[in-house]
Amino acid sequence: MQKTKINPPKGFRDFLPQKMIIRDKVMSVFKEIFEKYGFDQIQTPAIEYEELLLGKYGEEAEKLIYRFSDRGKRKLGLRYDLTVPLARVISNYQESLSFPFKRYQIQPVWRAEKPQRGRYREIFQCDIDIVGSSSPLADAEIISIIYEALNAIKINDFQIKINSRKVLFAVMEKVGIKKEKWLEVIRIIDKLDKKPKDKIIRELYQKGMKKEEIESLFTFLKKSKPDSFLEEVIGLASKMGVKNLLFDPALSRGLDYYTGPIFETIVKKPKIGSVTGGGRYDNLLKNLTGKDYPATGSSIGLDRICDVIEEKKLLSDKKTKTKVLVTVFSKDFLNNSLEILKILRKNNINSEVYLDPNTKLEKQIKYADKKGVQYVIFIGPEEVKNKIVTIKDLTKKEQRTFSFENISSFFS
Amino acid sequence: MQKTKINPPKGFRDFLPQKMIIRDKVMSVFKEIFEKYGFDQIQTPAIEYEELLLGKYGEEAEKLIYRFSDRGKRKLGLRYDLTVPLARVISNYQESLSFPFKRYQIQPVWRAEKPQRGRYREIFQCDIDIVGSSSPLADAEIISIIYEALNAIKINDFQIKINSRKVLFAVMEKVGIKKEKWLEVIRIIDKLDKKPKDKIIRELYQKGMKKEEIESLFTFLKKSKPDSFLEEVIGLASKMGVKNLLFDPALSRGLDYYTGPIFETIVKKPKIGSVTGGGRYDNLLKNLTGKDYPATGSSIGLDRICDVIEEKKLLSDKKTKTKVLVTVFSKDFLNNSLEILKILRKNNINSEVYLDPNTKLEKQIKYADKKGVQYVIFIGPEEVKNKIVTIKDLTKKEQRTFSFENISSFFS
Repeated sequence: MQKTKINPPKGFRDFLPQKMIIRDKVMSVFKEIFEKYGFDQIQTPAIEYEELLLGKYGEEAEKLIYRFSDRGKRKLGLRYDLTVPLARVISNYQESLSFPFKRYQIQPVWRAEKPQRGRYREIFQCDIDIVGSSSPLADAEIISIIYEALNAIKINDFQIKINSRKVLFAVMEKVGIKKEKWLEVIRIIDKLDKKPKDKIIRELYQKGMKKEEIESLFTFLKKSKPDSFLEEVIGLASKMGVKNLLFDPALSRGLDYYTGPIFETIVKKPKIGSVTGGGRYDNLLKNLTGKDYPATGSSIGLDRICDVIEEKKLLSDKKTKTKVLVTVFSKDFLNNSLEILKILRKNNINSEVYLDPNTKLEKQIKYADKKGVQYVIFIGPEEVKNKIVTIKDLTKKEQRTFSFENISSFFS
Repeated sequence: MQKTKINPPKGFRDFLPQKMIIRDKVMSVFKEIFEKYGFDQIQTPAIEYEELLLGKYGEEAEKLIYRFSDRGKRKLGLRYDLTVPLARVISNYQESLSFPFKRYQIQPVWRAEKPQRGRYREIFQCDIDIVGSSSPLADAEIISIIYEALNAIKINDFQIKINSRKVLFAVMEKVGIKKEKWLEVIRIIDKLDKKPKDKIIRELYQKGMKKEEIESLFTFLKKSKPDSFLEEVIGLASKMGVKNLLFDPALSRGLDYYTGPIFETIVKKPKIGSVTGGGRYDNLLKNLTGKDYPATGSSIGLDRICDVIEEKKLLSDKKTKTKVLVTVFSKDFLNNSLEILKILRKNNINSEVYLDPNTKLEKQIKYADKKGVQYVIFIGPEEVKNKIVTIKDLTKKEQRTFSFENISSFFS
């Protein structure tokens, strides 16, 4: 068997139990917070019509969309983010939804990126969006959720950067850059924190900007200040308890569709770049629906966050959720083991019986140990006679006997 | 905007909050049960190498795999089920896993089927499998989980059918069918409950079987009995509390890789066909790993199950998880509303504030009503003066006032 065949394709990952326990924990913590803030969950299909996906993200991003045709020759593509599907959902069900519509969505998206540390081709995103409100309170709520969500999973060495496309556009207008070049310039300066400044300058130069224009762009960027809307957002967010919020006049975000405030969270240690990114996009939905649906939201990158949690050991690193293995003394005692198993499961204690009754006890214990199960129960001739079980704690290497009635209380 | 553009592609579905609340509930109930039985979760990527996906499912199924090439010309395909990815995981990580390996996996799979009622192109599967045990106890555990899981979500008008590929093969040997035709015949008789018998007979005839052979096949099928392994499975399952288990000598399952017991659950009312299907597949992993990994498992079709739950209204049909809307009397009172909101959220009560402060109260209430939020809180000049809030129950159409301290206890 070739190694290529048993590895997932490049840029894709398998999640074994130990990783899944962390991911599942993070997702359930997030969901609880989203719901506490009045957001409801939706899900959309992995596959969308190509037509829907094109023309929304900008040229460079579009190259990364997985595209194919089905047997009926329909042109399809894999979901690239959760925002465009949301826009489609709004268009399709606008009559039955209540606006402002607050939804969260936790699903993978696919991007044919060059794989590198912290970049995958299958990315699990958690998106929170509010559609149908132009109030700064909406943006503040999004920021507040991000703040609370990251704290809840014990990430606290982070900074939420905020800026506004309006502020950026005003700067570019002052510099004298033509309107049709604005998004191009934004896409380039978006990389200021990833690439050296002289590289950025060269790229701007290659796009036809003059040296003086480039200098003036950086000067004005440095001097720019929040507009009144952004100030309101910042004020409301801090009233809601958000710390770590910082105005960053160079923050620009890569996607085309943002129109107002934009925000991004940087985890400072370990240095892994942004874990959330979002902003206000007041026109994306107008293009699709013909109606005004001002919207704001953010996506939270589950993968990078789980990387941080693993690296910093912020959550327990259990290998299994199983608490107890009931061993089988021999085939004749299988019924006794099954009886104990029934008691445990009736009391909602995660437990299993060793499945092959003719296995040496030693091997059964080894199985539990390798899996990461903490407790092992023995029930052999002695135990049956006295109506007891022996419970061994594999971590503490202690064992004690218990009557049948006391088994479940030991574990709870 | 064309309608095609705002609908999901044919055979795909959007899940809005009301449906998601049911799906989420079902998934979390299932997960709890799987974990109670000692299963841990894994996840694998949506995209696999085409090479891995081909040659496992049988010709007919293979046509339904979504296939495409990436920019590096790698031949890829979308996951068709969760069993083959599991096999790959076992091959890849066999050194670090503890066997028998018990895993569950809840992820979508994609099949380019002709869409029809209860058949989708994106299917959410819950799979439970035990890899590395040839014990009948393993099969019995799988059946027991299915039984408990369906009961837990209040589906109880169902039947679990069981048979064995070994029993089927023995029948075909007696009839004198050549070994290389066995799987072909099985795929045809698998449709006995979906197509009229004479159609099945015609198909067998077209595959080169003689009339007498076909007659003899049906006679032997009728007379066939469980072998000793199957009897043990049935005995253990019933000892574990499983009712509704029925030996069905014609049950054959469509996929090629089964080798022993096979099982399927039919929900009788509403008549929607099978909601679970599985069995023992002792050779699939040998082909991939070169080692003996006897395995058994089942997949539970989340979509059809949620259809049943909706149709029979087995679970609550809430439209939102949000409990409370805090209205905003006017922009001057926004801070007071935010203060109440803080109290609610601190007490983990799902709540939101109306986002646009300059909206008439009537419209704010309408928003809550349409979204399905049961309670609305008012805090205006009167309330602020007396340090109280007014809480209105939109379902019962009652309202009462409460002091700030008593708000959270009202909702808990």
